[in-house]
Amino acid sequence: MNSFIYHIPTKVYFGENQLSHLGEELAGFGKRVLMTYGGGSIKRIGLYDRVVSEIRRAGLELFELGGIEPNPRITSVRRGAEMCKEHGIDVLLAVGGGSTIDATKFMAAGACADFDPWDFLSEKHARIDRALPIVSILTLSATGSEMDTGGVISNPETQDKIGRLDPKLLPRVSFLDPTVTYSVSPYQTACGSADMMSHILEVYFCMEKDLYMLDCFMEGMMRTIIKYAPIAMKEPDNYEARANLMWTSSWAINGFINGGKRKAWSCHPMEHELSAYYDITHGLGLAILTPRWMRYCLDETRLPKYVQFGTNVFGIDPKLPPMEIAERAIDMLADFFFNTLGLSSTLTDIGIDDQKLRLMAEKAAGGGLQHAFKPLDADDVENIYKMCL
Amino acid sequence: MNSFIYHIPTKVYFGENQLSHLGEELAGFGKRVLMTYGGGSIKRIGLYDRVVSEIRRAGLELFELGGIEPNPRITSVRRGAEMCKEHGIDVLLAVGGGSTIDATKFMAAGACADFDPWDFLSEKHARIDRALPIVSILTLSATGSEMDTGGVISNPETQDKIGRLDPKLLPRVSFLDPTVTYSVSPYQTACGSADMMSHILEVYFCMEKDLYMLDCFMEGMMRTIIKYAPIAMKEPDNYEARANLMWTSSWAINGFINGGKRKAWSCHPMEHELSAYYDITHGLGLAILTPRWMRYCLDETRLPKYVQFGTNVFGIDPKLPPMEIAERAIDMLADFFFNTLGLSSTLTDIGIDDQKLRLMAEKAAGGGLQHAFKPLDADDVENIYKMCL
Repeated sequence: MNSFIYHIPTKVYFGENQLSHLGEELAGFGKRVLMTYGGGSIKRIGLYDRVVSEIRRAGLELFELGGIEPNPRITSVRRGAEMCKEHGIDVLLAVGGGSTIDATKFMAAGACADFDPWDFLSEKHARIDRALPIVSILTLSATGSEMDTGGVISNPETQDKIGRLDPKLLPRVSFLDPTVTYSVSPYQTACGSADMMSHILEVYFCMEKDLYMLDCFMEGMMRTIIKYAPIAMKEPDNYEARANLMWTSSWAINGFINGGKRKAWSCHPMEHELSAYYDITHGLGLAILTPRWMRYCLDETRLPKYVQFGTNVFGIDPKLPPMEIAERAIDMLADFFFNTLGLSSTLTDIGIDDQKLRLMAEKAAGGGLQHAFKPLDADDVENIYKMCL
Repeated sequence: MNSFIYHIPTKVYFGENQLSHLGEELAGFGKRVLMTYGGGSIKRIGLYDRVVSEIRRAGLELFELGGIEPNPRITSVRRGAEMCKEHGIDVLLAVGGGSTIDATKFMAAGACADFDPWDFLSEKHARIDRALPIVSILTLSATGSEMDTGGVISNPETQDKIGRLDPKLLPRVSFLDPTVTYSVSPYQTACGSADMMSHILEVYFCMEKDLYMLDCFMEGMMRTIIKYAPIAMKEPDNYEARANLMWTSSWAINGFINGGKRKAWSCHPMEHELSAYYDITHGLGLAILTPRWMRYCLDETRLPKYVQFGTNVFGIDPKLPPMEIAERAIDMLADFFFNTLGLSSTLTDIGIDDQKLRLMAEKAAGGGLQHAFKPLDADDVENIYKMCL
C-alpha cells in the first residue's frame, strides 16, 4: 500500500439555483472575465443568458470565446491564451463539458507563459509555473474536468491527442446544477456514462493492494452509473438521475479513488489514438474498447479482481466458479454499454477499419502501457483493436 | 433533494514516512509554532521526538502545550489562546486524537479574539472572524477532527459539552500515518470505531431523499469498519486495517456524505450529556445508545431505511420480511459493538444510574432533537436512556 497526498480544494456549488453565487465567486478573483464555451447549446438552453446576467449584476467586465470543439484543439487554446493577455483577464469561466473546461485550463496556463501552449503538452513538457484562476459551470456529466487537475488537447496538425495533469489547472470553483444537463441527449448521456465507468475501471482493475474502503466506493459509483444512466436517457429531466450522474462524474476521476495506486491507465491511451485519428466521441471509444481489454487481460493472476467486480457491481452469485463469474461480468458490462446504453459495439460500426491500427497501437503503447494492469506492448494493443473491429 | 456546497481544502499526507513534509508545511505559515498534545503517549511512541526534530530541521521556533484532556476543557483552550497571543504564534500543530485537535481549533480562534473563547460555544455564539492556521498529526482514528470544521469543548463549571462548526476551524494540513496508531489499545480502537460508525449512522438514517451514490459510500465505510476494527484490535500493527480505519475516520464526518441532508443528529446530543456529566469515553457512550435509539425509532414509515441498512451493510437476506430484517440488523449492530468490539453494553455497567437521566434528557432535547430522523422530546430521550440502563 503506497502513501499519497490528497488535496482537492475546489469549491463545488451543487444543486439547483446555485448560479446566484457566480458573481461573488468571480469577483473574488478580479474584474475581467473570459467566458469560454462550445458550439452554442448553452444559448439554446438559456444558460448563456443567465450567466451573462449574473456577471453583469456583479459589475464585472465580460469577454467571450465560443466555438470550442469536442476533442478541443490547440488552436482554440492559443486563441484563448492570447485573449487573456490582450485583455488583461483576471479569471476564466468555462461553461460547458469536459472539452470546454479542458481547453480553458490550458488557456489559463498559456496566459501566464511567453511560449506556445502546445509546449505544455508536447514532448517539451514545459513547466506550468502559474495559471489564471478557473471557474467552471458544468453542462455534461462525463470527464470530471470540473474537479480534477487534468486536461486533454488535440493537435490535428500532428495528429496528437495528449493529456496532462497539474495542480495549478484545478478549477477553484465549480457549479454543478443537474438541471443544466436535462437537455443532454440520450446519446451524449450514454457516452458520458461510459466515460465515467471507464475512469473508475481504469483505477479499480489493478493488482496493487489498496484501501478496501476505496474499492467499496468505486463499486458504489459503478452501481450508481448502471442504475441511473438508463433512467436519465429515458427521462431527461429526472433530477435524481442527473444529480447522481453529475456528482459521480466528479468523484470518478478527482483522484480520491486512486489512494496510493500508481498503475498506468489502459483504455484511455488506446482511445486517445482512436479519437486523435478519427475524431470519435471519447466515451464511445472507451465503451468499445473496455470489454475487449478486460477479456484480453483476464488470466488466473488477475482473476480475483474480476470476481470482486462481478459480485459486488453486477451482483453475480459468488458461489459460481470464479472464471464463470469473470466471463459473465464482462458480458454484463458489454450488455450495459451496447444494449442498455445503446452504443455502437464495434470500430467497424463507427467507420474505423484496420488501416491505421498498427500506427495507433505503436503510439498508444508509447504512453506508459508497460505499467498498466496487464503490461501491454504494441502487439497487445493491436490485438485489442482487432477484437473491436 | 437539497442543494449543498462542498469545500474541503485540507491537504492530507496519508501513509508512512510523510512527516518529512512537516517542516515545509509549517514554514509556509510562519516561524513560530505552538505544538499541542495530550497526556504524553506521543512521547512513549517516539512521535514527539520525530516531530520536534522535523520542526528544528526547518529552523522554526517551537512552543508547547501538553496535557490536553480527553473531552477537552475550556480551561485548556484558554491557556492555548493566551500562549498564542503571548508568543505571537503563527501556526498551531495539534499532535493527537480528536480531543487535542478540537481544543486546538478553538485556541486558534481564541488567539484572534479579545474575549473569552467560551463565548464561541456558549449561547453568546460569538462570531469566529479569524483563526490561526492549524496543522494536525492524527494519532487516533475516531472523531474526524483532522478533516472537518468542528470541535466539541467541555466546561466542567457549567457541566456543558458543546460543539460548533466553522469553516475557519478546518485544519489546513493533516498528517495521517496509520503506523502512528499501532500503539492505540484495543479498547480505544473499539471506542474510535464505534464513534466513526455513529458518525455515518447519524447521516444515513434520514428520511430526506438524497444521493444514492452517497448511500453506497456510507454503506461501504460501515462495511470497512466492521471488517477492520476487529483486525486492528487483534493485530495492532496491521497496516491495512489501521489505514482503512484512518481514512474512514476522516470521510465519515468531513461533510461529503451529507450531500444536501439537513436533519439534526440524534445520538451525539444524547451522548454529549452523558460525557458532560460522567466524563465517559465518547465512542463508548455512542455504542451503548445507538442500538437502543434505532429500536426506539423503528416504525413502518422508517422501516425501508433499516431494510437498506440490514441488507447492504450486514448482508441480511433481502427476501426476509422487512421488519425481521430491521430487527436482525439492530441485533447485528449491537453484537458488533458489545461482542466483537467487546464494549460495555449498558450505562449501569459503566457506573451511570437513573439519578440524572431526566436532567440530561432535558438538556439533550434542547439540542435540536425535534429535527432528527425521528423527532425526539425530553420524554423520548429519557426513555432511550432508560433502555440503556
